[in-house]
Amino acid sequence: LFELLKDTGYKFKFVSEESGVSGYMDNYDYLAVIDPLDGSTNFVLDIPWFSVSVAIYDRKSKTILDSIAGFVINVPYNKVYSYDIRNAYVNGYPYNDKPNDLSLPKIVITYFEKDKVEKSIQILSKINGYKIRSLGSTSLDMLLVCTKMAYLFFDLRGRLRNVDISASINFCKRLNTIATTLDGKEIGVGIDNVYNIDEIILSWDHDVLKRIYSSFS
Amino acid sequence: LFELLKDTGYKFKFVSEESGVSGYMDNYDYLAVIDPLDGSTNFVLDIPWFSVSVAIYDRKSKTILDSIAGFVINVPYNKVYSYDIRNAYVNGYPYNDKPNDLSLPKIVITYFEKDKVEKSIQILSKINGYKIRSLGSTSLDMLLVCTKMAYLFFDLRGRLRNVDISASINFCKRLNTIATTLDGKEIGVGIDNVYNIDEIILSWDHDVLKRIYSSFS
Repeated sequence: LFELLKDTGYKFKFVSEESGVSGYMDNYDYLAVIDPLDGSTNFVLDIPWFSVSVAIYDRKSKTILDSIAGFVINVPYNKVYSYDIRNAYVNGYPYNDKPNDLSLPKIVITYFEKDKVEKSIQILSKINGYKIRSLGSTSLDMLLVCTKMAYLFFDLRGRLRNVDISASINFCKRLNTIATTLDGKEIGVGIDNVYNIDEIILSWDHDVLKRIYSSFS
Repeated sequence: LFELLKDTGYKFKFVSEESGVSGYMDNYDYLAVIDPLDGSTNFVLDIPWFSVSVAIYDRKSKTILDSIAGFVINVPYNKVYSYDIRNAYVNGYPYNDKPNDLSLPKIVITYFEKDKVEKSIQILSKINGYKIRSLGSTSLDMLLVCTKMAYLFFDLRGRLRNVDISASINFCKRLNTIATTLDGKEIGVGIDNVYNIDEIILSWDHDVLKRIYSSFS
């Protein structure tokens, strides 16, 4: 990935979990936030749910939601979710927001930890008739939500990093499904290094988000 | 599946979630417990984790663990886990119990519900350094545990049925990983109809099971 981007001829600054910050530090053309394998545990265990993400930012970009282009590859399916400044694409074709399919089971994707159980239950108390999944690749989980296959995603563990979600959060933004904190604030984390994200929630259902925001405000 | 089994020439009694009890009621040769699609929600949502299970019992069999043969097919991988009276097979080759790979992440597969959170936390308090997954196909989840990819599986929702686990519980039994209740009793549910399973726990680590059993006895 790094080599491919270098071969474009543009000067890149790179941010990734594995290598931290590398490439051009100052006079770069673009910043690339890279997650070479989201779902590495699944990969090792032969569970077909893992992905590769790249988000591209220009020099003026300050926070995670400013990305100008990027992609997430669902590797087992060889399915490419990409975006540019305006649009989102699946396998190269423009992806249009689709109507809610109320016949689909309501899937909530989340990761439990003991010390966050009460907060999680507080969120879940705003929803009825859901099934919980913890699938193990955050960027694919988020794409499931903004393409309206799943209903809600939240992660309160404080272990997610900007590199895990930089591409998926921007793909979802193109579909007007914008990840926030529990009280409805934009995720404003920076991109010039690897940063943790304390909490994040994402749903295409603005009504349920309103109920959750008001309960945490 | 029903047709294929009928075409063998043997007289089958069938038990499945969808059709209940069908086929020969009395003078049958074999009882077939069938789950035509475990992970149907995943199937609908394009999450590649779903399976087809068949467990065969003879006329003398009384409880779920008496199966004489059967299989679970991991459909997205086209991987067949089968067993006869003595052995377990993967894609037709005898599967031998393997040593514990301590380098693997410790995966706990479980499904959370509000009213079972405390009990779940009590179980999790016996383990250190795990990651939780809720993947959505119980029989594949159980196979991950007894083939030592995952560490522990438990489900306390009371919504599992014998048809969901009849093949996987017997495959795992061949590898000496036997599912029990929280206080260590064998799962003794019948097979002549569809029955719910209140609670179930499975791990290849007998030490952790002892700690959990003693905490629930």
